[in-house]
Amino acid sequence: MRAVQVVGYHTKLQLTDVPEPAVQGPLDVIVRIGGAGVCRTDLHILEGQWAEKTGVALPYTIGHENAGWVHAIGDAVTNVKVGDKVILHPLITCGLCRACRFGDDVHCENSQFPGIDTDGGYAEYLRTTARSVVRIDDNLEPADVAALADAGLTAYHAAAKAARTTRPGDICVMIGAGGLGHIGIQVLKAISAATVVVVDRNPAAVRLAVEIGADHGIVADGTQVEDVLELTDGKGAEAVIDFVGEGGATAEGVAMLRRAGNYYVVGYGENIDVPTIDIISTEINFIGNLVGSYNDLQELMVLAAQGKVSLHTSKYPLADFQQAIDDLDAGRVRGRAILIP
Amino acid sequence: MRAVQVVGYHTKLQLTDVPEPAVQGPLDVIVRIGGAGVCRTDLHILEGQWAEKTGVALPYTIGHENAGWVHAIGDAVTNVKVGDKVILHPLITCGLCRACRFGDDVHCENSQFPGIDTDGGYAEYLRTTARSVVRIDDNLEPADVAALADAGLTAYHAAAKAARTTRPGDICVMIGAGGLGHIGIQVLKAISAATVVVVDRNPAAVRLAVEIGADHGIVADGTQVEDVLELTDGKGAEAVIDFVGEGGATAEGVAMLRRAGNYYVVGYGENIDVPTIDIISTEINFIGNLVGSYNDLQELMVLAAQGKVSLHTSKYPLADFQQAIDDLDAGRVRGRAILIP
Amino acid sequence: MRAVQVVGYHTKLQLTDVPEPAVQGPLDVIVRIGGAGVCRTDLHILEGQWAEKTGVALPYTIGHENAGWVHAIGDAVTNVKVGDKVILHPLITCGLCRACRFGDDVHCENSQFPGIDTDGGYAEYLRTTARSVVRIDDNLEPADVAALADAGLTAYHAAAKAARTTRPGDICVMIGAGGLGHIGIQVLKAISAATVVVVDRNPAAVRLAVEIGADHGIVADGTQVEDVLELTDGKGAEAVIDFVGEGGATAEGVAMLRRAGNYYVVGYGENIDVPTIDIISTEINFIGNLVGSYNDLQELMVLAAQGKVSLHTSKYPLADFQQAIDDLDAGRVRGRAILIP
Amino acid sequence: MRAVQVVGYHTKLQLTDVPEPAVQGPLDVIVRIGGAGVCRTDLHILEGQWAEKTGVALPYTIGHENAGWVHAIGDAVTNVKVGDKVILHPLITCGLCRACRFGDDVHCENSQFPGIDTDGGYAEYLRTTARSVVRIDDNLEPADVAALADAGLTAYHAAAKAARTTRPGDICVMIGAGGLGHIGIQVLKAISAATVVVVDRNPAAVRLAVEIGADHGIVADGTQVEDVLELTDGKGAEAVIDFVGEGGATAEGVAMLRRAGNYYVVGYGENIDVPTIDIISTEINFIGNLVGSYNDLQELMVLAAQGKVSLHTSKYPLADFQQAIDDLDAGRVRGRAILIP
Repeated sequence: MRAVQVVGYHTKLQLTDVPEPAVQGPLDVIVRIGGAGVCRTDLHILEGQWAEKTGVALPYTIGHENAGWVHAIGDAVTNVKVGDKVILHPLITCGLCRACRFGDDVHCENSQFPGIDTDGGYAEYLRTTARSVVRIDDNLEPADVAALADAGLTAYHAAAKAARTTRPGDICVMIGAGGLGHIGIQVLKAISAATVVVVDRNPAAVRLAVEIGADHGIVADGTQVEDVLELTDGKGAEAVIDFVGEGGATAEGVAMLRRAGNYYVVGYGENIDVPTIDIISTEINFIGNLVGSYNDLQELMVLAAQGKVSLHTSKYPLADFQQAIDDLDAGRVRGRAILIP
Repeated sequence: MRAVQVVGYHTKLQLTDVPEPAVQGPLDVIVRIGGAGVCRTDLHILEGQWAEKTGVALPYTIGHENAGWVHAIGDAVTNVKVGDKVILHPLITCGLCRACRFGDDVHCENSQFPGIDTDGGYAEYLRTTARSVVRIDDNLEPADVAALADAGLTAYHAAAKAARTTRPGDICVMIGAGGLGHIGIQVLKAISAATVVVVDRNPAAVRLAVEIGADHGIVADGTQVEDVLELTDGKGAEAVIDFVGEGGATAEGVAMLRRAGNYYVVGYGENIDVPTIDIISTEINFIGNLVGSYNDLQELMVLAAQGKVSLHTSKYPLADFQQAIDDLDAGRVRGRAILIP
Repeated sequence: MRAVQVVGYHTKLQLTDVPEPAVQGPLDVIVRIGGAGVCRTDLHILEGQWAEKTGVALPYTIGHENAGWVHAIGDAVTNVKVGDKVILHPLITCGLCRACRFGDDVHCENSQFPGIDTDGGYAEYLRTTARSVVRIDDNLEPADVAALADAGLTAYHAAAKAARTTRPGDICVMIGAGGLGHIGIQVLKAISAATVVVVDRNPAAVRLAVEIGADHGIVADGTQVEDVLELTDGKGAEAVIDFVGEGGATAEGVAMLRRAGNYYVVGYGENIDVPTIDIISTEINFIGNLVGSYNDLQELMVLAAQGKVSLHTSKYPLADFQQAIDDLDAGRVRGRAILIP
Repeated sequence: MRAVQVVGYHTKLQLTDVPEPAVQGPLDVIVRIGGAGVCRTDLHILEGQWAEKTGVALPYTIGHENAGWVHAIGDAVTNVKVGDKVILHPLITCGLCRACRFGDDVHCENSQFPGIDTDGGYAEYLRTTARSVVRIDDNLEPADVAALADAGLTAYHAAAKAARTTRPGDICVMIGAGGLGHIGIQVLKAISAATVVVVDRNPAAVRLAVEIGADHGIVADGTQVEDVLELTDGKGAEAVIDFVGEGGATAEGVAMLRRAGNYYVVGYGENIDVPTIDIISTEINFIGNLVGSYNDLQELMVLAAQGKVSLHTSKYPLADFQQAIDDLDAGRVRGRAILIP
């Protein structure tokens, strides 16, 4: 089959012919890829940023946001059958460790990450396991939801946490109206009555955020902290979800937070650097956020099937992977680039 | 009556004669002081550290850890009667704002803080309100529990949060085996089955911590992070309560934390300074902790009455306030210094 | 002022002239009534059903769902000022007992209930306290929201509990599409992504329920249990909110419930009568529901101000109280009858 | 190998020779039995009470409370190795359904129950899977903990729920001081600071309950409800755990409950039969309790290893199974009867 592989760092990806993956274990599931998201992390992989961390042997197939159809299953698979439309949780997890047993799959002690440390989805087929496949509704297409598998799931996970700590009338500021922010807005509006205030430097992004459901949009032109304080009678927001995490976003975000408020860290780059006296005197919390669990992904797919969460995508044939990568790198992709084998 | 007052900054406290406080409002409660804790914050007040923050007019009576007997009550007071033994929640709260209505008294939007921004308890009598007095058990003496009103309540509040996120077999590291640490150890052992690991630079403090209930004691001699990791199969602790918050404690504490673990910030001095990528990739949380609520103080008094939490105190007559202050400043007080009018 | 009073049981209410209430205590608030809901409970009061329970002395002014404008305030009132538009929490609470201190006002150990055990709102003015008045948005009118003070608040309270235990895709069955049911539907849709299935005997009520937001409507014609099971792949619903509680509703409701599901008891009349072996083998829960707290009422008023919750009302001048009572008794009121002084 | 089998209903169990179970699937684990608890359910099985419910084909090997040593493992087993000491969670679960993915194993949609619907542990060896084996501490012996696998786990599960809703000073009444009650007392004292009040008809059982940690013991001689009310200032207990569930226990238990209290249903026999008006006017909850999850069992084994929970056992060689059954039936077993192959 055709697959796009990492053959070296600081060099281009290569389309090549590799053997189709086959069922090896009783829980294995072979998925025919219907769409694979092209993510900024893929650029970082090529730059070698993950090389040491994962120790993955080259060449291998890249692509960690995948959806498609079940092509073959192992003997012990009971939750999907051949032909089912599925989206793939980004991790392959063991199901036996204490974290898995609590439903915190993402902290599995024995996980694999296709596209990062084993073969991923820029290909015709991919091998995962029964523990990672979520059936999707008939009205959804794999290529349309693939990008929800990782970026969307991260936004869902953070927004769902924020929903649990906010009540009607509470304010949730979202810093960053990009891909994750768009999903976050739609999710929080769908599952809570919190008031969503979006802050971004890009006026067009702010406008779009308001169109898809944000209650207030603030262009970050230097007065964004004052703007949030004004909206909140000087008290600050009950929650801030920071999808940026760099360029000074965290200091500004903390300044927007109310006493006893929660700061959800999603984007990354700079340090959280806050005096402990400020943390204790206002009793604020910083909440880390990784990708969501398998059950989170099921729930996100419910929202997608109900039309409450959607994502703009730009589709490319698999063979045009370089174009997709280049477009992403140049900021030419609107929404999310998806490769279609 | 006699009262010890702040008459200026960078100058000594003064024992003087002032009018007895009287009931003014219908919820007012006049307490005859049985014991007033001498706290490091009192030293900081004299250094002027709080002058600008509170704007308190001088002279005023210092002392924010108070217990005693109800001496007089306003018309609308229904929860205590004259003669009752009580400990005082450190704040006077309004009962009308949304925070008060949720039981989060410490985030009251209209609070006063006797001893800090209004007259406190280094005196024969103090005025507070019905919302701040907690009746204590017959078997407790005001002078024995006064220091639990603030320092103890803070430790209770943090330990109670940690108890809610730990399960039998989970490890809670407590950094700092001083006054707050001692209360924290006793509280967490009383209300949970978490395994308590105490870390302190002082070998004698570590020994004492183990005597009062810590499961493991680690002398912080440079290998404390490795020691905690070894105790936890290299995974780190589910919870860290940091009673120190300076001198590098936070960086070490974060290194002791497990994936998805919770870091409770109690002590202060330095900054929490952690890369956002570390926060999200391990999905850890930082939880701020202020003093506990009125109901927390009720619960702490239950534990005290049951003999599960106690505090070593050194008592001084009110007239010897300067000796108490000097002893505290010189590190000569074992446990907590208490002034007895 | 004019007031409608209970002058005896099994006899008609009487419009009479009584002294205007005046501020007596420092937290008292006198409210000029803008609207008072006419509730089925008022009929029960006249039948003497509450006589023994409350021991209220006759005559007294009836009416427990009230909203209006602040007319006068006591010295210690800080949360409202004269002229403010307010809705009244049904209880007057002490703010000092442990329940009040946790925000569970409705379990206050020293509460009064205007309209039930002290003078209520079928009148020009009513005395309550600062702890019971919730300011409402400029775009809301007292007469339009008065009926949310008790019936609506009960529905909000139950729906908010159900929201906390359901996730996207989970099913919440609501038995009864009357006044409480309509509020419940709107609230649950506003604050969660649960799928709402309404069951009622009245086809018109079911249709209306679907119009205001229910995802599915089932006419209870004998196959309602099967209908719910069919909708849920034979597994039953994650939550059932029972606004009826009589006529066999509870047995049917339990049969609609999934393993580990929650049954919210709101309506009353018959017994919950379920074999303990069924409760433990499916591990279901029965959750009692009383009226909501003060903070719940604040949140409901946020939803009302946002246009997410509304109520159809039929307004009557105060002098036409007998017509309103008769219409209610005869089932001629659409939505809720409101008296306007 | 030798195994004790059900060969018919209303007839005696039979010791017979059957083939040793072998690894069939990649997650299978063969356990050499070290101890198998003899439970009242075993008597009910012989009476045919479970015949229709499970449809199990006869003959099959009975015994559902098992512990021992890992004898053989399938290819995919990573959490135990041959020779490990283990206790067995009573269910074999799929790990793929939504309940399993949330850690609610006991609501697995595809579970098996060895000893009930497939071969159990009155035998030398038993086949289970990696998902059901919990490693136990070196200082524990399989025969000593086997009975914690089901009865003990149920008590742990209920007590852990009660711990999450009680605070220091809150009262938890436990009705029934038998096997489950004894575990419940030890667990609740180990993981919370709730005050435990035990109620039982048997004075000796009440005395023993107090010896192992209950704070108060009440002999149920007709005044037990008044006794509990007296202990609680007439307000009732915050929690009642009912290990009996028959003979009028539930009506008495409800009468012991405080406003907003939680009633944990564990024992079964009679109906919960309570007017809905009582449920809503006091806002009480009824919480069903099945056996605990795999993670619950891990936690219970932590408490056992720490010496905080123990169980009196009477051991019998496997060949004396009839004696054990007869002793249990006649009420001659102190603690729990355990068969040792």
